[in-house]
Amino acid sequence: MSKNKTPIIILNYKTYTESTGKNAVKLSQYVQEASDETGINMAIAPQAVDLYPIIESVDIPVYAQHMDAITPGGHTGSALPEALYETGIEGSLINHSEKRLTLADIDVVVEKTRQLDLTSVLCTNNVKTSAACASFNPDFIAIEPPELIGTGIPVSQASPEVVENTVEEIHKINKNISVLCGAGISTGEDMKAALDLGAQGVLLASGIIKAENQKEALIDLVSLI
Amino acid sequence: MSKNKTPIIILNYKTYTESTGKNAVKLSQYVQEASDETGINMAIAPQAVDLYPIIESVDIPVYAQHMDAITPGGHTGSALPEALYETGIEGSLINHSEKRLTLADIDVVVEKTRQLDLTSVLCTNNVKTSAACASFNPDFIAIEPPELIGTGIPVSQASPEVVENTVEEIHKINKNISVLCGAGISTGEDMKAALDLGAQGVLLASGIIKAENQKEALIDLVSLI
Amino acid sequence: MSKNKTPIIILNYKTYTESTGKNAVKLSQYVQEASDETGINMAIAPQAVDLYPIIESVDIPVYAQHMDAITPGGHTGSALPEALYETGIEGSLINHSEKRLTLADIDVVVEKTRQLDLTSVLCTNNVKTSAACASFNPDFIAIEPPELIGTGIPVSQASPEVVENTVEEIHKINKNISVLCGAGISTGEDMKAALDLGAQGVLLASGIIKAENQKEALIDLVSLI
Amino acid sequence: MSKNKTPIIILNYKTYTESTGKNAVKLSQYVQEASDETGINMAIAPQAVDLYPIIESVDIPVYAQHMDAITPGGHTGSALPEALYETGIEGSLINHSEKRLTLADIDVVVEKTRQLDLTSVLCTNNVKTSAACASFNPDFIAIEPPELIGTGIPVSQASPEVVENTVEEIHKINKNISVLCGAGISTGEDMKAALDLGAQGVLLASGIIKAENQKEALIDLVSLI
Repeated sequence: MSKNKTPIIILNYKTYTESTGKNAVKLSQYVQEASDETGINMAIAPQAVDLYPIIESVDIPVYAQHMDAITPGGHTGSALPEALYETGIEGSLINHSEKRLTLADIDVVVEKTRQLDLTSVLCTNNVKTSAACASFNPDFIAIEPPELIGTGIPVSQASPEVVENTVEEIHKINKNISVLCGAGISTGEDMKAALDLGAQGVLLASGIIKAENQKEALIDLVSLI
Repeated sequence: MSKNKTPIIILNYKTYTESTGKNAVKLSQYVQEASDETGINMAIAPQAVDLYPIIESVDIPVYAQHMDAITPGGHTGSALPEALYETGIEGSLINHSEKRLTLADIDVVVEKTRQLDLTSVLCTNNVKTSAACASFNPDFIAIEPPELIGTGIPVSQASPEVVENTVEEIHKINKNISVLCGAGISTGEDMKAALDLGAQGVLLASGIIKAENQKEALIDLVSLI
Repeated sequence: MSKNKTPIIILNYKTYTESTGKNAVKLSQYVQEASDETGINMAIAPQAVDLYPIIESVDIPVYAQHMDAITPGGHTGSALPEALYETGIEGSLINHSEKRLTLADIDVVVEKTRQLDLTSVLCTNNVKTSAACASFNPDFIAIEPPELIGTGIPVSQASPEVVENTVEEIHKINKNISVLCGAGISTGEDMKAALDLGAQGVLLASGIIKAENQKEALIDLVSLI
Repeated sequence: MSKNKTPIIILNYKTYTESTGKNAVKLSQYVQEASDETGINMAIAPQAVDLYPIIESVDIPVYAQHMDAITPGGHTGSALPEALYETGIEGSLINHSEKRLTLADIDVVVEKTRQLDLTSVLCTNNVKTSAACASFNPDFIAIEPPELIGTGIPVSQASPEVVENTVEEIHKINKNISVLCGAGISTGEDMKAALDLGAQGVLLASGIIKAENQKEALIDLVSLI
């Protein structure tokens, strides 16, 4: 069961052309191949609309990018947790910096993932919000300083103390939560640095998705661990 | 091509349990059967996550419930028009009362549906906002007084003048826009009243989705026209 | 200095007619009289637009209802902390259930109140979000189960364990934070029950604002403590 | 009465330090002096919190920057039209690009300004949204292409056809609406160009607020008309 295996890499597909529709299915196959060849656990978070065709095509953990804090009913255009669950996803990103939730809704969605036995990856932006999120007891907290997202400057290099302090503050409150390191990760060195600082994996996007050879970029990413 | 055939009925699946996942596929088949048996054009608007399996299963026009005013890029958790388009949808609801957009975003999304050659169904709440929307030149304007949504009281009965005035004001600005009547529609009489008031169809949801026999409810809906 | 004196009662003016404009100034004078006569510390949170005339008229702690997580610049229509500060306020409500913030913005605004030496009253909806908020180290956490707001059913009676558990969970993380009890408080018995459960005061609104005699209602509120 | 005199210049104070609190009062006096000396009608739109002290200090039309589409009640932290009205404002900006509203809320707020006999200045971003807004019959439509806001590049120079077409399209629907030109206006030449293109005034902000000598900048602005 995927929850017991630490997903060391989570690839957020966002809404890039390279990770949409047919491209998303193809990319997912590359991720599976890279995972199979390296033995490293890799999960993906595609757009909601692409979940069914991707889950049919690959056998790696697939997560939703977002869930709304709603129950079945009149919510035209929203992302119903139960509808996403039915696709066969194994988890969900929550509160990504591009889809921030209110505190009350974070609580609702983390609780909903627990009820559905889904892995929860709660995204935060600094040490203090990470500590706050530890109270919700998610499976993962992914710290992504927003000023680094998409820059190619890895948090592990720009602010190593952010990763270390996040791990420390979270574990003061809850030792069971794993920390992921996001923002700016793209090379094997970034990945190794993140793990050396106490993270148990990375959440990344453009560094891989925009790579000329996505599969090779993934293999490079885990080459030093 | 569906754009030339007036879709007299659009069924908004919202996020009801009865119209999610496997239930959504089954419901879509009932809609297709009802459409085939009656010869009436029926379109459906399922949740984004259910679009692929539904489009694979049926041969009726399928619309998205919502599109975000974004282009490909870093928009985790949002509804990218190009991703929805790739599923094979033929149109989209826009600005539903449960997913209101800013004026600037309505403009962007209607324009995007035009570029993608998708049918645009722009939802409004009264005569004045309908007239405003006529300037965007969508294919359909669906007027749904919010106070009637989900009540079972049809707008055609509660406020017939709203439908008549909407048709009149819209056509002053743009004669090519068809008007749909929403909110509270569930019976053949509601449907007939809507058409008699100048609407060219209806947008409806719970009246059919929550019916004990969804297919019969649809057949009843068009029984008087 | 007001921060050293526990403000046992905070009256949220919301946007009621009875607590707007001239009515707000009059109400503020009643609060001051009730505070003077009973010796109980009472603070008020009027609308932003009414802050200057109220602060000119009374000598009790005045708080803002909300601050946006912005710095000076191009933010037409937003509530700039520095602009509110300049009125002479002594604190601010943050994340009220009628004005929820994202987690990232809560962090920014609590930090901003600290920089400006303002009292921070961070509103939460249950035990878990209260525990999360303890990490931000605000002066007060005001727990208001949303289902009780405006009902006249006091949280201290409907769910006494919510208050007790909130106090306990917050103090596990940070012993310096005082807990206020909100939602449904209106009588002296509600107030006493709240304090007995470990709260150090109450945050209330309609129970006083809508009272026929607002000053008497306030005096009654503190009659049993 | 100010509604009969075209306010040729509306200065949006946004949330700049230079236009907050005491600075806002001083700036308002400069605007009044510039208006008195030039005979040109100038209105100002300060932050809500600064309305009372400004309206006490000057005798020029003062507008709100924003109104929420709410009625008196439980709306902590929102901008109640009735509360703003009570300050003595003569109008309000609506739907500024930094505070976009849904279409339904634009309708509510424009209607509310009409009921309160306030001047409505409805902000738009292009020709099509301006035409849509004409259906709401506001007193002014202020067109501000968002890509030019704060750049110092005047819309009248960057896209003169936008101004001309906006005037034309709006007047097709409603001849009584005056058009203001926003975004990038700061000099007398910009102002003259705007009027030559059919605008009846300008909505501006940083060009004046950030000027070393705000009063002179205003006098310069109207020097060529």
